[in-house]
Amino acid sequence: MIIDCHGHYTTAPKALEAWRKSQIAALADTSQARAKGALAIGDDEIRESLEGAQLKLQRERGTDLTLFSPRAAGMSHHIGDAVTSRHWSEHCNDLVYRACKLYPRNFAPVCQLPQSPGVAPANCIGELERCVNELGFIGCNLNPDPSGGYWTDPPLTDRWWYPLYEKMVELDVPAMVHVSASCNPAFHFTGAHYINGDTTAFMQFLTSDLFRDFPTLKFIIPHGGGAVPYHWGRYRGLAQDMKKPPLKELLLKNVFFDTCVYHLPGIELLAKVIPVENILFASEMVGAVRGVDPETGHPYDDTKRYIEAVTWLGAEDRRKIFEGNARRVFSRLKA
Amino acid sequence: MIIDCHGHYTTAPKALEAWRKSQIAALADTSQARAKGALAIGDDEIRESLEGAQLKLQRERGTDLTLFSPRAAGMSHHIGDAVTSRHWSEHCNDLVYRACKLYPRNFAPVCQLPQSPGVAPANCIGELERCVNELGFIGCNLNPDPSGGYWTDPPLTDRWWYPLYEKMVELDVPAMVHVSASCNPAFHFTGAHYINGDTTAFMQFLTSDLFRDFPTLKFIIPHGGGAVPYHWGRYRGLAQDMKKPPLKELLLKNVFFDTCVYHLPGIELLAKVIPVENILFASEMVGAVRGVDPETGHPYDDTKRYIEAVTWLGAEDRRKIFEGNARRVFSRLKA
Repeated sequence: MIIDCHGHYTTAPKALEAWRKSQIAALADTSQARAKGALAIGDDEIRESLEGAQLKLQRERGTDLTLFSPRAAGMSHHIGDAVTSRHWSEHCNDLVYRACKLYPRNFAPVCQLPQSPGVAPANCIGELERCVNELGFIGCNLNPDPSGGYWTDPPLTDRWWYPLYEKMVELDVPAMVHVSASCNPAFHFTGAHYINGDTTAFMQFLTSDLFRDFPTLKFIIPHGGGAVPYHWGRYRGLAQDMKKPPLKELLLKNVFFDTCVYHLPGIELLAKVIPVENILFASEMVGAVRGVDPETGHPYDDTKRYIEAVTWLGAEDRRKIFEGNARRVFSRLKA
Repeated sequence: MIIDCHGHYTTAPKALEAWRKSQIAALADTSQARAKGALAIGDDEIRESLEGAQLKLQRERGTDLTLFSPRAAGMSHHIGDAVTSRHWSEHCNDLVYRACKLYPRNFAPVCQLPQSPGVAPANCIGELERCVNELGFIGCNLNPDPSGGYWTDPPLTDRWWYPLYEKMVELDVPAMVHVSASCNPAFHFTGAHYINGDTTAFMQFLTSDLFRDFPTLKFIIPHGGGAVPYHWGRYRGLAQDMKKPPLKELLLKNVFFDTCVYHLPGIELLAKVIPVENILFASEMVGAVRGVDPETGHPYDDTKRYIEAVTWLGAEDRRKIFEGNARRVFSRLKA
């Protein structure tokens, strides 16, 4: 079985986007009551949005189950306030829940959190509990920068985040550290902000004692860990200069990397420097890069091919990357 | 000959730091006149600061010439205002000039610019001209984020920067894109902010027409290009989705990568995906990582060893990486 631990509902029916637009428009009109309202999307529309996209690609590429969450850039926690984010997150999560219910063999749900800049992450506990306890979600996406590119909230290792981590540990769900859209013109979202978010989070973990406080807390750093595996020597050396234990001991019981790296040399590097136990298969399809690589004739994001092409990985290594590690990290996954 | 294109004067005599501290202290006392003052550092102190550090390491590692600039984190353009940065930059550049004069076979000077958040980069032209025309500097370091981690200035591709680029082209000097200290608690400086700055600048270039406007403008992206080579497939795919020409055509006449990547697998990846013409040898010693890698028994930042260990590079490839490319990019270098 092949589990893709990183897929977003990027193809959701247009009514979702329309709802969000009207929500944003209403922010300007303070005389309006804040209403969550309803989302009129039929099951057939959901099926249609998935059949020609994620499901087709699963079949074509030979992957089985995608851990499925709302569109990452769509989270846009910087828009509005905590109520805005709550209403929006509930709709997005409910829609992902419905998609997973319609295709329980193809998708397992991962939730968006109703974060908002300057609002304590404890405020997300209600939605996390609802998703996990009532709807069967198995993980969440955690935005290390709800400001959308200005990084005005405390680092992920600050006690500001601890109440949410306590709940994650209690519920036994991991978080994928995933920024959202960038409203800072310095940062292109998928080309800079996403990758920077990954690198930043890793370095925050490295300089902290977070995993002494939460020995069972688990994070997935997506996009192959940002810049981290490429600079693994730098990170080993920085930790050493700081008199920290080796990275394996310091972090690798708690921090995992996905395989959203869109060329073979990158995947080879990842598999060379990061222990195989810490690598989770992912493609992020349908996502950031949608074209076909003229150098290979295959889609850039068909990452399964790269892993299969790493000649020195044994059968057991591949089983861990494709399935075993995901089951260990997303321990609520039963499919 | 082996040219290290990326070295900072991280070991400058203590009087430099003392001057900076008093400059910062004076910022709080608005009754004081803004004085540049003098820096009392003798030639012997400069010699002493280099003999046991950069010069010793050059000898031990077998490198010849370091392109030498003021300490990157020390630039701290976010402190004070444009006058603060002008006084500080002049002192730092003068000291680098003196070091290079004392050891003309070992160092060639690269300047810091007196940037300040919200101040037009055109304001740096005077210091750039002074350094290049009067003192023989051959390049500059350009900070894409003078705010120190809040990224409040326009992207490097905005016309905001164009007057400085016009001067760089006229003087025929390249810029190394290099952020400075981070005053944002989200970003560790050498572990996140530096690498993010590299990745961010590359993506700014990718999404722009900058090199159509400045066909001879040259940038070095340090630290092995941040996350870029590891995600080369992602960047190729993003450019393709945007209907841009291939990266080679779009950027690689103007954008170069250094080799400050502190382990062999990273250097192997760099040499595999980036054309050899675009790779400039560098170590950033004495810099971000100062320890000895227990896996190799050699200093992490002894990057010459990694390049020598890439078995498929031919003699001519190595000559380009170690010397030829640096001479082409830093065309004012005569040594």
